[in-house]
Amino acid sequence: MRGKVYLVGAGFGGPEHLTLKALRVLEAAEVVLHDRLVHPGVLALAKGEKVFVGKEGYGERTSQEAITERLVALAREGKVVARLKGGDPMVFGRGGEEALALKRAGIPFEVVPGVTSAVGALSALGFPLTFRGLSRSFAVATGHDPRLPLPLADTLVLLMPLHALEGLKARLLERYPPDTPLALLARVGWPGEEVRLGRVRDLPGLGAGLPSPVLLVVGEVVGLYEELR
Amino acid sequence: MRGKVYLVGAGFGGPEHLTLKALRVLEAAEVVLHDRLVHPGVLALAKGEKVFVGKEGYGERTSQEAITERLVALAREGKVVARLKGGDPMVFGRGGEEALALKRAGIPFEVVPGVTSAVGALSALGFPLTFRGLSRSFAVATGHDPRLPLPLADTLVLLMPLHALEGLKARLLERYPPDTPLALLARVGWPGEEVRLGRVRDLPGLGAGLPSPVLLVVGEVVGLYEELR
Repeated sequence: MRGKVYLVGAGFGGPEHLTLKALRVLEAAEVVLHDRLVHPGVLALAKGEKVFVGKEGYGERTSQEAITERLVALAREGKVVARLKGGDPMVFGRGGEEALALKRAGIPFEVVPGVTSAVGALSALGFPLTFRGLSRSFAVATGHDPRLPLPLADTLVLLMPLHALEGLKARLLERYPPDTPLALLARVGWPGEEVRLGRVRDLPGLGAGLPSPVLLVVGEVVGLYEELR
Repeated sequence: MRGKVYLVGAGFGGPEHLTLKALRVLEAAEVVLHDRLVHPGVLALAKGEKVFVGKEGYGERTSQEAITERLVALAREGKVVARLKGGDPMVFGRGGEEALALKRAGIPFEVVPGVTSAVGALSALGFPLTFRGLSRSFAVATGHDPRLPLPLADTLVLLMPLHALEGLKARLLERYPPDTPLALLARVGWPGEEVRLGRVRDLPGLGAGLPSPVLLVVGEVVGLYEELR
């Protein structure tokens, strides 16, 4: 028997946002390697052995090299393996690196897309990412390092901004007036979901006490959401 | 009985990329209003009455106002209605406008996220949208009007660029060297799926004869895909 690795997107929030293909792969996989952003309700659908390979945060860690080596070793044993990631495997989260390592090791692999939180968490709450006359584009980046240049689009979505809000405020003020609307979305689809609406000038205080993970959305569509909610 | 409208994302390609929640809503809806970008395999899962309300292209058309009025009227009759859109309802496709019209008419509604082609079609093919050291952000816009300003990010994804490739080439050359890698992805997940890899200088010829819908991806991750495919 020949092993194969599926890089599977769990989507954001609970299992209702899992795709039919992701469900099928999860049910068929003999081993599931998952990180900390995967909802327990999604994990509960996996029938094989579950292995936690968390990489971030302050608790248990597994190096990227160790994860990749494990994926290769399991596939070489002939196992069908699901590497389960929050959101979409190819949006942050190192899916591309794992795909490249598998390719170089000669391991068959397939990517199963998921609903990335950068789009789906907004959509589920009723936030339009685009809107005629208000937003003709959107951009997504991580917000954890305010020294990085920000992408430029009508709607800006930043992932994991919570510990960098002060630096991000300075960055945003280089481009936006201080009264530009923004929103902080915490744990969408999880217990503790919270939406805070404000303006660029309200940072960093607006984020006080929010539970991770958080998304920051900036742009005129946020003003629209005040009517839509 | 009280009516309700679900703005449902069908994802890209066939039904395997539908979410569990979208499937549940499709199966429960009494009426399903859909446009032309929804895969027939997805439509086949709907159990209620199906109404085509195509808006674009050269064939049958329904105005946005007529669609909104119909959604409101059906909900007022007490019907459970699914408004089924390709991709995610809040990414292009006027989902925000429909949500706003429903809100103003006092109709209960809910948005069910889908896998947008701008992310999922790339992911399914094995294109990383982000990659450490190569791409720390991505941006999405429509490509049908090359007079519009392009968003700025490490990876640029343009939807529906096929009839504007000459103008887009001029736009891209204002920012990228002519040998910047790009890809045209046609009908991902549908019959006729095709991937063409090239450089900015290869436009517009690279798009010759491609079937709609098409995505244009520009950035260093495209060079990486040559190794990953």
